[in-house]
Amino acid sequence: MNAVTPANPWTWPEETWRGIVQHVRAGRSLKPKRWKGGATFAVALSFDSDHETIELRNGGKSYSRISQGQYGARAGMPRILAILARHNVPATFFMPAVAALLNAAEVKAVAAAGHEIGIHSWIHELNSRLDHATERDLTLRARDVLEQLSGRRPVGMRTASWDFSPWTLKIVRELGLLYDSSLMADDEPYELLDQGEATGIVELPVEWIRDDAVYYNMDRAMALRPYGGPAMVFDIFRRELDEAAEEGGLFQLTMHPHHSGHRSRVWIIDEIIRAAKAKGHAWFATHEEIAAYCAAEAKLS
Amino acid sequence: MNAVTPANPWTWPEETWRGIVQHVRAGRSLKPKRWKGGATFAVALSFDSDHETIELRNGGKSYSRISQGQYGARAGMPRILAILARHNVPATFFMPAVAALLNAAEVKAVAAAGHEIGIHSWIHELNSRLDHATERDLTLRARDVLEQLSGRRPVGMRTASWDFSPWTLKIVRELGLLYDSSLMADDEPYELLDQGEATGIVELPVEWIRDDAVYYNMDRAMALRPYGGPAMVFDIFRRELDEAAEEGGLFQLTMHPHHSGHRSRVWIIDEIIRAAKAKGHAWFATHEEIAAYCAAEAKLS
Amino acid sequence: MNAVTPANPWTWPEETWRGIVQHVRAGRSLKPKRWKGGATFAVALSFDSDHETIELRNGGKSYSRISQGQYGARAGMPRILAILARHNVPATFFMPAVAALLNAAEVKAVAAAGHEIGIHSWIHELNSRLDHATERDLTLRARDVLEQLSGRRPVGMRTASWDFSPWTLKIVRELGLLYDSSLMADDEPYELLDQGEATGIVELPVEWIRDDAVYYNMDRAMALRPYGGPAMVFDIFRRELDEAAEEGGLFQLTMHPHHSGHRSRVWIIDEIIRAAKAKGHAWFATHEEIAAYCAAEAKLS
Amino acid sequence: MNAVTPANPWTWPEETWRGIVQHVRAGRSLKPKRWKGGATFAVALSFDSDHETIELRNGGKSYSRISQGQYGARAGMPRILAILARHNVPATFFMPAVAALLNAAEVKAVAAAGHEIGIHSWIHELNSRLDHATERDLTLRARDVLEQLSGRRPVGMRTASWDFSPWTLKIVRELGLLYDSSLMADDEPYELLDQGEATGIVELPVEWIRDDAVYYNMDRAMALRPYGGPAMVFDIFRRELDEAAEEGGLFQLTMHPHHSGHRSRVWIIDEIIRAAKAKGHAWFATHEEIAAYCAAEAKLS
Repeated sequence: MNAVTPANPWTWPEETWRGIVQHVRAGRSLKPKRWKGGATFAVALSFDSDHETIELRNGGKSYSRISQGQYGARAGMPRILAILARHNVPATFFMPAVAALLNAAEVKAVAAAGHEIGIHSWIHELNSRLDHATERDLTLRARDVLEQLSGRRPVGMRTASWDFSPWTLKIVRELGLLYDSSLMADDEPYELLDQGEATGIVELPVEWIRDDAVYYNMDRAMALRPYGGPAMVFDIFRRELDEAAEEGGLFQLTMHPHHSGHRSRVWIIDEIIRAAKAKGHAWFATHEEIAAYCAAEAKLS
Repeated sequence: MNAVTPANPWTWPEETWRGIVQHVRAGRSLKPKRWKGGATFAVALSFDSDHETIELRNGGKSYSRISQGQYGARAGMPRILAILARHNVPATFFMPAVAALLNAAEVKAVAAAGHEIGIHSWIHELNSRLDHATERDLTLRARDVLEQLSGRRPVGMRTASWDFSPWTLKIVRELGLLYDSSLMADDEPYELLDQGEATGIVELPVEWIRDDAVYYNMDRAMALRPYGGPAMVFDIFRRELDEAAEEGGLFQLTMHPHHSGHRSRVWIIDEIIRAAKAKGHAWFATHEEIAAYCAAEAKLS
Repeated sequence: MNAVTPANPWTWPEETWRGIVQHVRAGRSLKPKRWKGGATFAVALSFDSDHETIELRNGGKSYSRISQGQYGARAGMPRILAILARHNVPATFFMPAVAALLNAAEVKAVAAAGHEIGIHSWIHELNSRLDHATERDLTLRARDVLEQLSGRRPVGMRTASWDFSPWTLKIVRELGLLYDSSLMADDEPYELLDQGEATGIVELPVEWIRDDAVYYNMDRAMALRPYGGPAMVFDIFRRELDEAAEEGGLFQLTMHPHHSGHRSRVWIIDEIIRAAKAKGHAWFATHEEIAAYCAAEAKLS
Repeated sequence: MNAVTPANPWTWPEETWRGIVQHVRAGRSLKPKRWKGGATFAVALSFDSDHETIELRNGGKSYSRISQGQYGARAGMPRILAILARHNVPATFFMPAVAALLNAAEVKAVAAAGHEIGIHSWIHELNSRLDHATERDLTLRARDVLEQLSGRRPVGMRTASWDFSPWTLKIVRELGLLYDSSLMADDEPYELLDQGEATGIVELPVEWIRDDAVYYNMDRAMALRPYGGPAMVFDIFRRELDEAAEEGGLFQLTMHPHHSGHRSRVWIIDEIIRAAKAKGHAWFATHEEIAAYCAAEAKLS
């Protein structure tokens, strides 16, 4: 689509901008009246375990950045899994296939601990740079790798860098997935519309606001720096949590082991879980559980 | 003008730099001796409801950013309208015509709640990239769309991205608008000069300091990140408010539903209104009311 | 020099890198044993009153940025002059000649209030992009403009954007200036060396750390944003002040009316002066007074 | 390697991405069961004394930035050495050869105070832009310069900008160094693997999180600004320290005299040392001492 969109948007006829907006769009809200077991709000923690692929997808030119990725698997994951185990809280881990192949023992450990594993691209490639056939092939191969390593076929997907292409929704439908978690049109789960048509696919919306990488990323070659200290990151996450609980809604969080697994940051995961528990009746669930519950409550076909 | 301005400004003759400075310039202050009803200061809240057009004007390449725009309409606006209603405070909503067409029900709801709707470009295009005829045509069509959807002809305008072109003032005059709100030469309302000539047009000055997008914007492809957490944003807005009240002046604020409508940020609108009310006699008014009052007090022709 | 410096610095012979380092370099410290009148430390406040030239030097393409510059003169300066008057504290105002010509009344008011006016380029041009003759011509004309408007010949200079060219020191010497204030090799005043030769010129060092523009600048087209809120800026300035007082040294600060003159920021000037006064015996002086005192104490020729 | 890596990583065969990841990789952990003398955790402070080379390696175009580098040697180093002496804490200073030649007295003073001096490139060149022979030649010459000036042959190295090339590990092995300190795969010391082969080389991992330059750097030409005030920097360093002590591990810190030597920041070094001492039994050691102890405990060949 991008290739054929004409320049100068102010000259577009109405069908052009309506077409873009309706290509993939939020449909009806799937926020349930009450959460599972009578919980008053829901908490869905997720970790994008990109590890070495963050640098590999950029060409693998820096051993320093490769080592930062390895940190996620080697130092970050044990801390994160220990916190989740201590609190008995499940989470969803989205892994690029290459990261899973490089860290096969991690995949098994995550699955054995009862956490969900979701599709997250082949090597953290950006979908908007691929054609339909390539994106489809990589997504199918990624699903197969995760199924082989974890022993269970993934039912949900998150696009790498939340780069949702013109073909992504078609591939999600072809794979028969329960949910996607890459778009941002709401705080609450919603049904995805495909050019106006209801799809039965649940979107569990993300936001850069609730993504640790936004605050922690560092790129020596550009001005990207971790200017937001952990105290600020915690303050933002906590405010999102507070209002989610206030609204009786879903609090969804995206973190990365190679960012949030660091000593100066890992306490935030612990504190967010404590804060959610302190609010009363929270339902901590995997993305799959949230999506399945919302779909059932809404009698989604 | 830009096209014919010679390079190397240090070689310019005096008429060149004087010409640029005087093309559009602040004239006499329109700060009134007292605000309406004896109020000691004035508060003018505005929301640039750009929604999907933020991404459309850049070519509409990212469905993720399109969904962020939809968030503004779907999740942000209900929270904002509820806060304004609870406090019984009016505001001005500047909407690109395409955003209005995509969210026609929102336009009607905003108008029905007694808020003002102002012109804000066709599709958030940058004026400085257009010629005079194109900018004029888009501005007139934008005005007509807002009038049709809201039932009332707009009397004020804010350029998209505050990108005021060499022709913008001429168009504002041709349309017979009461005010513009895109420039930054003062904290208080002032009369716009057109190449030295008094125009009778009120400028309600804005500032990046009092614009939420400055602190919240995020662009994955560059180093733009929301480094300023909401606590810092509130501190800045509150300091601007405090001194405006101290000076007996105008406190003007620009926010965006797709930024300030988020759970972790929406409290700032509530707290700013509370803080203003706690100061004693504040006049909360639309931009139109402020401009009309200042024009009348100054006996502006 | 830049044009002839060969690429690949790791291949340079020793004379190349020694030559660059010694071209302009810090000589002996001019920190006096005691400050004037027995003061235990010194405070030198400066304001770079660039106003409209910040945008003019970039080609004058944006009326919005031109209006931001006018804000400095129209709204910022009155607040700043009032604070300085209330505390009876002198300061130094560095003004590009074009800013002075556009705001001639301001120059007279500043001079009449007993403040110093220093050279600050013609139109805020970057010296490193000019040849020797052009830089020299612009500097001389700038000095003449300031002398005509203020009635007094400037004795000090600050390069615009602290862009000190290979010829700047030669021009400073040719003009017979008392001091320059553009370099950063120390916290304390020092004598400038010209290719190893003592010059008798006092350097009053600046630093980006003590420059408000670093924290407040905003450029829509790039990722530059005012991420450092005023509370953080005050904390940094206060820490610089605290340690300067502790060391019995000089606290030098660079501010801009179009940045620090804003409502949410102007309190910092007031608070810094209060904090310095609260420490006991501070000497508040213009840059000229500091330089003259240090030169005399060191018996600089 | 970079030159021959094919584009489009999603098309790479498994041997390509495995080859990149295994080229240089973390091997077994060298975290000892107990630290020297029964200490419960270890503190390794380091200073990259780049001084003038930060600008020289970029071509030496700015005298302002050259003077910032001189600040490190002239104003920063005395403060830092005084703090270390007051607390009787050793540190490691990594110096580019050109910085050492420009500041030979500093090298002697650092060595005389009992601190370690480590290799840190010739002129802060980026290794990934060099071929094997050039990188090797510069590293050997750098080692010889430091040995001549300090009277002791360095046993450790840190690549400039942590830019570890495909040949760096081979050069480290050829030089017979005890350790490298440029990579980031763990918080604790580990053995480096060279294409899967154990090398006996100790890696003392660094991280941008624990590098002051990340928060303090300023580049006028891009959006790089010191947005993280010193209070935030201290908070991050202290959290890293707290958890290192909690885990009984290593707290390693990288600072720069031209950054952390400033008045508003130098207190952080003092406070971090105080905080570490207050925790009980800390072992403050040079990087060499840490590496030698870990190698001995692990019976590294």
